[in-house]
Amino acid sequence: MTIDLQQAAQLLCGWDDILILTHQKPDGDAYGSAFALLWALERLGKRARVETPDGYLPGFRFLFGNYSPKAFEPRFVVTSDVAGPELLGSLAERWAHRVDLCIDHHKINNLSAAYRLVVPQAAATCQLTYHIIRHLGVCFTPAIAAAIYTGIATDTGCFRYANTNPEVHRIAANMMEAGADYALINKLMFDTKTKGRLEIDRLVMETLEYYFDGRCAVISIPNAAVERAGVLEEELDGISAFPRTIEGVQAGVTLREKPDGNYRVSLRTNGDVDASAICGKLGGGGHKNAAGCTVPGPLEEAKKLVLAAVEPELL
Amino acid sequence: MTIDLQQAAQLLCGWDDILILTHQKPDGDAYGSAFALLWALERLGKRARVETPDGYLPGFRFLFGNYSPKAFEPRFVVTSDVAGPELLGSLAERWAHRVDLCIDHHKINNLSAAYRLVVPQAAATCQLTYHIIRHLGVCFTPAIAAAIYTGIATDTGCFRYANTNPEVHRIAANMMEAGADYALINKLMFDTKTKGRLEIDRLVMETLEYYFDGRCAVISIPNAAVERAGVLEEELDGISAFPRTIEGVQAGVTLREKPDGNYRVSLRTNGDVDASAICGKLGGGGHKNAAGCTVPGPLEEAKKLVLAAVEPELL
Repeated sequence: MTIDLQQAAQLLCGWDDILILTHQKPDGDAYGSAFALLWALERLGKRARVETPDGYLPGFRFLFGNYSPKAFEPRFVVTSDVAGPELLGSLAERWAHRVDLCIDHHKINNLSAAYRLVVPQAAATCQLTYHIIRHLGVCFTPAIAAAIYTGIATDTGCFRYANTNPEVHRIAANMMEAGADYALINKLMFDTKTKGRLEIDRLVMETLEYYFDGRCAVISIPNAAVERAGVLEEELDGISAFPRTIEGVQAGVTLREKPDGNYRVSLRTNGDVDASAICGKLGGGGHKNAAGCTVPGPLEEAKKLVLAAVEPELL
Repeated sequence: MTIDLQQAAQLLCGWDDILILTHQKPDGDAYGSAFALLWALERLGKRARVETPDGYLPGFRFLFGNYSPKAFEPRFVVTSDVAGPELLGSLAERWAHRVDLCIDHHKINNLSAAYRLVVPQAAATCQLTYHIIRHLGVCFTPAIAAAIYTGIATDTGCFRYANTNPEVHRIAANMMEAGADYALINKLMFDTKTKGRLEIDRLVMETLEYYFDGRCAVISIPNAAVERAGVLEEELDGISAFPRTIEGVQAGVTLREKPDGNYRVSLRTNGDVDASAICGKLGGGGHKNAAGCTVPGPLEEAKKLVLAAVEPELL
């Protein structure tokens, strides 16, 4: 059953012993929306806890501190920012079939739940959580404000991406006034790089090549470079956004070597160049400006295949 | 005479034939505040024009289009975002002594003017321009909204820096609703790098060294690298922010080779490490977390001097 923000708040008001789940590899919006909801429910005197398939990642300790979840047998299960059952990872088997309330902003959401609040127009799940908390009548403590701010800022690339909307700016203003330490959060989320990530950036920049009069830029991420830099897979997040940021580039290609010698292609395009059409030719798919596919190696062969698919689509 | 926002609007209401000046090497806040004011005055039926010591840089054409300034003999002179007479460059001799109204947000402003509206708490001059336009009773056209948004977004690093305040978020929301093409502006201002800048980034990253258990990071910008990358001096903007963003780094040092063989030092620090104290020891100065000085070359000698000044201040 599809419900609105006020109805979600009404349901939560009547519930207790609430388990809040978020998705694997939790990001700022996953932790932010889950913990903001947890603390709001606790202020109403309810028992609740947050669980994720990957626990509580140290990179977000500024948000949840030394959180230790309360032990109790859940009577209600809420998912926050979870677009599908498979994203519950190791928690899916136990909980995916008994979700009471699903709160999410992803365009495609195939999680079954008794009640669904899925609003793709929201820039972040935290934009929904903000309104639920207002409907709950709970005041925004500095910790809740920091959690909401984190989710909104991270899912909009610090208000840079096209999904940013006027309301998220107004929510950010309110959360800053409620005590969110936005300068610290911005520094940690947007202005800090690990030494390993820096090293992989350097190695990857050395592979940069231009094609078709600079309209296409290609980088590759060899396994050897990842090993040399000693980075985890999650530290590679965002590298594929880089070739598209170069002036004049319409299609930015990232070729990531896979263990089986094939290459995972991430394609980012600007404006009217259709990434999904290009990757479609190679058996992949995605969105208009961001798509992916997998092509056979070695590197030079993979590159040839991708470039042949890209060229006719350039403007 | 120091005046407030409403008084500035009242003055402007009574004036005509207004010359609006902004500073050399104009940035988003300089152009944004100057053109927003121009268009607001024109909507009141006034004759006005914008001049800068460096004209109308092509990188900001999205903001002012094919602007061509009207010819008239100015009766009133307004400066926007100009912190001192020397920043008027080639226009200083003609106009610096006859400024009627100075609108600015810099902490230190030593421009003489009949009326001064200098508000260091404002994150951008555009934050002031926004209020002046409201007091003028002019509605925000998409072009004015884009100009205000550009100034606010660029001076806060797209809402990332510590100078961001709740009000700039609310102004951004209003300007988005008034038609500012924020996705385009963000893409041009924050997600586009020239090929030359990319090349200099790559060359500079190769010079990265860590000292004192990774608490200090040093990069250098040799003249040869700048020449090889073929970049203009203004394309080097922001490079010195980079070493400080590395995890664990307390002091980030950038050494820029000068034509005379000396080195210009830019020091950025985190938290309690006092950049101004460190640069003070070397005859320079600045703010607590951003300071500068000049030291004699060659590079290795310059590095030694700076590192000796940095080490005792680390935590």
